[in-house]
Amino acid sequence: MKINGPAEPIFVPGGFRWSSATAGIKASGRPDVAFAEAPLGASAAAMFTRNGVCAAPVVVGRQHLRSAKGRVRAVIVNAGNANCATGKHGLLAAKDVCRAVGKHLESAPQFIFPSSTGIIGVPLPAERLINATPRLIAEAIATEDALRAFASAIMTTDTRAKIASTSFAVRGREVRIAGVAKGSGMIHPNLATMLVYTFSDVAGCAEELDAHLKNAVGTTFNCISVDGDTSTNDTVLLLASGASGVTLDLARKQFARALQAICASLAEQIVTDGEGAKHVVELRIEQARSMEEARTIARSIANSPLVKTAWAGCDPNWGRMLSSIGASGVALDPAKVSIFIGSHQVCRGGTLNPFDERAAHAYMQQPQYGIRILLGRGTASLRFLSCDLTTDYVRINADYST
Amino acid sequence: MKINGPAEPIFVPGGFRWSSATAGIKASGRPDVAFAEAPLGASAAAMFTRNGVCAAPVVVGRQHLRSAKGRVRAVIVNAGNANCATGKHGLLAAKDVCRAVGKHLESAPQFIFPSSTGIIGVPLPAERLINATPRLIAEAIATEDALRAFASAIMTTDTRAKIASTSFAVRGREVRIAGVAKGSGMIHPNLATMLVYTFSDVAGCAEELDAHLKNAVGTTFNCISVDGDTSTNDTVLLLASGASGVTLDLARKQFARALQAICASLAEQIVTDGEGAKHVVELRIEQARSMEEARTIARSIANSPLVKTAWAGCDPNWGRMLSSIGASGVALDPAKVSIFIGSHQVCRGGTLNPFDERAAHAYMQQPQYGIRILLGRGTASLRFLSCDLTTDYVRINADYST
Repeated sequence: MKINGPAEPIFVPGGFRWSSATAGIKASGRPDVAFAEAPLGASAAAMFTRNGVCAAPVVVGRQHLRSAKGRVRAVIVNAGNANCATGKHGLLAAKDVCRAVGKHLESAPQFIFPSSTGIIGVPLPAERLINATPRLIAEAIATEDALRAFASAIMTTDTRAKIASTSFAVRGREVRIAGVAKGSGMIHPNLATMLVYTFSDVAGCAEELDAHLKNAVGTTFNCISVDGDTSTNDTVLLLASGASGVTLDLARKQFARALQAICASLAEQIVTDGEGAKHVVELRIEQARSMEEARTIARSIANSPLVKTAWAGCDPNWGRMLSSIGASGVALDPAKVSIFIGSHQVCRGGTLNPFDERAAHAYMQQPQYGIRILLGRGTASLRFLSCDLTTDYVRINADYST
Repeated sequence: MKINGPAEPIFVPGGFRWSSATAGIKASGRPDVAFAEAPLGASAAAMFTRNGVCAAPVVVGRQHLRSAKGRVRAVIVNAGNANCATGKHGLLAAKDVCRAVGKHLESAPQFIFPSSTGIIGVPLPAERLINATPRLIAEAIATEDALRAFASAIMTTDTRAKIASTSFAVRGREVRIAGVAKGSGMIHPNLATMLVYTFSDVAGCAEELDAHLKNAVGTTFNCISVDGDTSTNDTVLLLASGASGVTLDLARKQFARALQAICASLAEQIVTDGEGAKHVVELRIEQARSMEEARTIARSIANSPLVKTAWAGCDPNWGRMLSSIGASGVALDPAKVSIFIGSHQVCRGGTLNPFDERAAHAYMQQPQYGIRILLGRGTASLRFLSCDLTTDYVRINADYST
């Protein structure tokens, strides 16, 4: 299935309008509010962070979806302020914004879905969002450019907008899905990555969408890591307007494949844009007893500062990877582990497999490459994307709010 | 209890001799073998890494202690090669070295305790250690300088030797304890930190020493983290020669306090010398339900790259700390959390407590300072030492084996 990336035309799904604005929340003065509207409403499914400290919009978004029985009229997202650790004031702020949007749309507030991303612990200037609301609504249009502007407005430390879209035909009718995402640091999703919005004109109820979203997220956003930090605001939203006239009943398999491919593309775009990342590493964990075990091991490798700095140095230091496999808590037999860096088998039976170190070093100088870990325990396998830990990551994050 | 650090005289315990040599294992050409001998033998207790991939000397050391029923005649440590992920050859190498040492001392090999530290996955050149053995034994002497040279020979990326010692009197007799350690990166001990050797002339059996060591390690080496990587070679060894003539029966409380203080001092020296560390942060977790919970939360904070880079930037970004508390997996109520950076309360009830940001920033420019986290859940508290994540850490580790 062909997925169009950020540089290609977007398959714009029917039944949605988008807009964006500069409300003065980002210090940079760049656009910082994104708005999406389904004039006839949309069915919705969402997944949120599992961080015990979660942001006010996550709390409110979850409440709204529940009381609206999975229907969404509009989404409003701000960047520059996470509205997290902001107490009751933060909850009120998120609700006030939804109420203002709902009022202009003649909709009850629970049909409005809020999101925020940015610095934690600073009160959200809700009035700036509320003031921007009339214009956001008036200017919302169903064009590719408007969706691109939505994707740009939600960026924080991202260096580029993340967009993926595709379409497929069912009995002569076209179904489209387009997704946008933001995320660059604090990426260690546990259920969802930072902010992801997927729009489709397929027709389906919230329960159906929910099952599709869970499946797609499990092997995409839950299989990436930039720095091992799980955000307080992670949200993945799937909206289905029904405008294509094709029901999920008819499109189940194709839709599942398309959604999975969109999420995989966005997940990869997030890791590729990882803060300071110079190398994207695709870990393939094979011969695990279960997917869960494979993921645990992948995360232990991908979160080890010693592994990540070795990747930064293009250093085929397989010993650090083996050590982090051992530190994962999975009680495996190291004597059954093999490690391949590209085609170079560097470890066999838990010990050195003589290899051409210079060639492996050269292979690791590529911006994106693969490492395979064979555990010799079972048949489950998993693909997990991560990146290196560079001095630029430290520089970016040692200088954020001050 | 006064603890003498590396710059002060060492209280040299009786019943031991030390020596060191250059066997050609470190690429730098610096001394790389350390030797300690108890001519009349010593009782011993040891704690090892919980990493599922553990080095050959850890396997052999554990076996030897068991079959020798907790008695040790000599310790041989090499730096520059971890003898880990070296398969059967590695196990044979560690045993060969012990056999050679035992032969010269007319002792069975199980009374010899081996340790290694350095790069993982490279075969240990055992013959170099074996060749150095006669000189190590011939030159071993019971002096302060010899113990200092032992501490230097076990260093890898350490920038300074780590030494702590003290003495106390029991019924007119003096008991001494001296400890040496190495460790700078790959520090996230789970039971023990990289390599620690404590020598005392107290008299006691292995079981008594074991209990003392477990107690001391729990609040010291198990309460530090440099980079969250648990090593494959972590070992803490306690040897008691009995030369003071004072039994643990009589000295229990004083010995426990002294051993705890020695371990605390060495743990602090390790974090202070953390790879690239510019700031040592003493986390105090208070009002936890249990020590285990407090440690889980401390580790979640201390291993967050976003928290550690904020520390590097002297950035009082309490939101990142709160987020990592939430990501710890402890199901706590964020609305009960307070955070103090020194005397500055930056978070109250899970939200911003207005504070003088400039003053907090200045406070964080100190090389060592404290952060208190109040959880509002119970009465357990814990002190945990960690350090920041700097561009120097990345530089040191992006250029290791190549």
